[in-house]
Amino acid sequence: MKLATIRTEDGLRAARVENDGYVDIGPGDVGELLRREDWQAVAAAADGPVLQVEPSRLAPVVPHPGKIVCVGLNYRTHITEMGRDLPAYPTLFAKFPEALIGPNDALTLPPESDAVDWEAELVVVVGRSVRRAGRAEAQAAIAGYTVLNDVTLRDWQFRTREWLQGKTWEATTPLGPVLVTPDELPADAEISCAIDDEVVQKSTISDLLFDAADLVAYVSTMITLNPGDMIATGTTGGVGHARKPPRYLKDGQTVVTRVEGIGELVTLVRRDGTS
Amino acid sequence: MKLATIRTEDGLRAARVENDGYVDIGPGDVGELLRREDWQAVAAAADGPVLQVEPSRLAPVVPHPGKIVCVGLNYRTHITEMGRDLPAYPTLFAKFPEALIGPNDALTLPPESDAVDWEAELVVVVGRSVRRAGRAEAQAAIAGYTVLNDVTLRDWQFRTREWLQGKTWEATTPLGPVLVTPDELPADAEISCAIDDEVVQKSTISDLLFDAADLVAYVSTMITLNPGDMIATGTTGGVGHARKPPRYLKDGQTVVTRVEGIGELVTLVRRDGTS
Repeated sequence: MKLATIRTEDGLRAARVENDGYVDIGPGDVGELLRREDWQAVAAAADGPVLQVEPSRLAPVVPHPGKIVCVGLNYRTHITEMGRDLPAYPTLFAKFPEALIGPNDALTLPPESDAVDWEAELVVVVGRSVRRAGRAEAQAAIAGYTVLNDVTLRDWQFRTREWLQGKTWEATTPLGPVLVTPDELPADAEISCAIDDEVVQKSTISDLLFDAADLVAYVSTMITLNPGDMIATGTTGGVGHARKPPRYLKDGQTVVTRVEGIGELVTLVRRDGTS
Repeated sequence: MKLATIRTEDGLRAARVENDGYVDIGPGDVGELLRREDWQAVAAAADGPVLQVEPSRLAPVVPHPGKIVCVGLNYRTHITEMGRDLPAYPTLFAKFPEALIGPNDALTLPPESDAVDWEAELVVVVGRSVRRAGRAEAQAAIAGYTVLNDVTLRDWQFRTREWLQGKTWEATTPLGPVLVTPDELPADAEISCAIDDEVVQKSTISDLLFDAADLVAYVSTMITLNPGDMIATGTTGGVGHARKPPRYLKDGQTVVTRVEGIGELVTLVRRDGTS
């Protein structure tokens, strides 16, 4: 099952994705839907007409998560390109919900930075409250998966030792297009990022050092994970900052961030004051 | 004016603190009150009876802030004791609201750590939405101040380069007891932390490298700050981890975290399975 959050004149509504269309589930976004214990049954039972939806009307699939936990270094290839050893523990930082934009929304480059970089990521979305979960309980608490580009201002990220200030700029992190239930995600799904049709990142999620269940279990050791909370599982090799010379996003480019089995984010990059 | 959030049988209520008592303002916590544009007038106009409230009924003064931004190194003395140079930019990280406990609630030491440390902090609470604020606008957006102890699991904090996982353990961060409006906070207010009557941290907020208005302005560069959002301004010298040998919190101790003009957090430390 695939779920989306749709912008309508009467606010956000959750929808189930069918063949090239959307079946309305009801008012409220997918995050609110996940707080219902019977969300799967409710979503599956919706049986209205199949509606067409303009791409710009897709909202971040969970627009107001209680927590966004991000993983810093988690693909073996990316860890290697950054010149680091494989870590014993996941590196965690946070992002605030105001950073999120929809899967087809434009990204306006903040004028405060000339080093805005891309990071294609698989996101695990929690569907059930868990604390100190083992792997099996963690696995069962996963509602599904979505895609995020952890767009990062490298100059701000590296102003200090803590990365937060490069990671949580308002309206810079595309999320979506849909949440897919775990049965829809291939174990070796391809993840990629392309800029104007040039593939800059490409890997498979089987290259993840800490997988979704590992991460849910680990984070739940310290804090309760609740429905709609999400963990961005980290990015793979090919980020702009690691290139020689480094490359960053430019006005007019289009970034396509894709995970096989889920879908893609199509992000037009622009700078204020330009056309 | 001083405001508190009170736990009642009918949920949380905001209150104005009078001489040794509390005047009910209405349902909802202080964070919700701050989202009203006329919060100051509403709080000042409340004129019911002065009620007595058991200390255990004080909730975290803003129990569900949209954002908790923490500053890592911000008192000159603490920066020095950690062996670092004065930084050009504030070091920022996040804490999730589930970490908060009330100003007189007990702190249960997580069994996963033997290195739980104290960090007395002044907190600035936002009262008006701001983005890219200058210093004057930032100053005007400050609703007031409160106290927090940024209790930290040092072993987890230093597992990786990012501090989040040592900082956001569930129910470990006391906050309160009240929010005071800016006119109530002396410019050189003393800040202190004591363990069983031994003063372990003592400084004045005039030792802050980046002050409240600096921090609101800086964070608002990257993201909109909204009413109830808070910035914990960092701690001063005297943390347990920097001592030789290091010292950490133990079962049965009482931590008193105080800022002059605001009040104190009284935190009984206990370990599960002990009396």
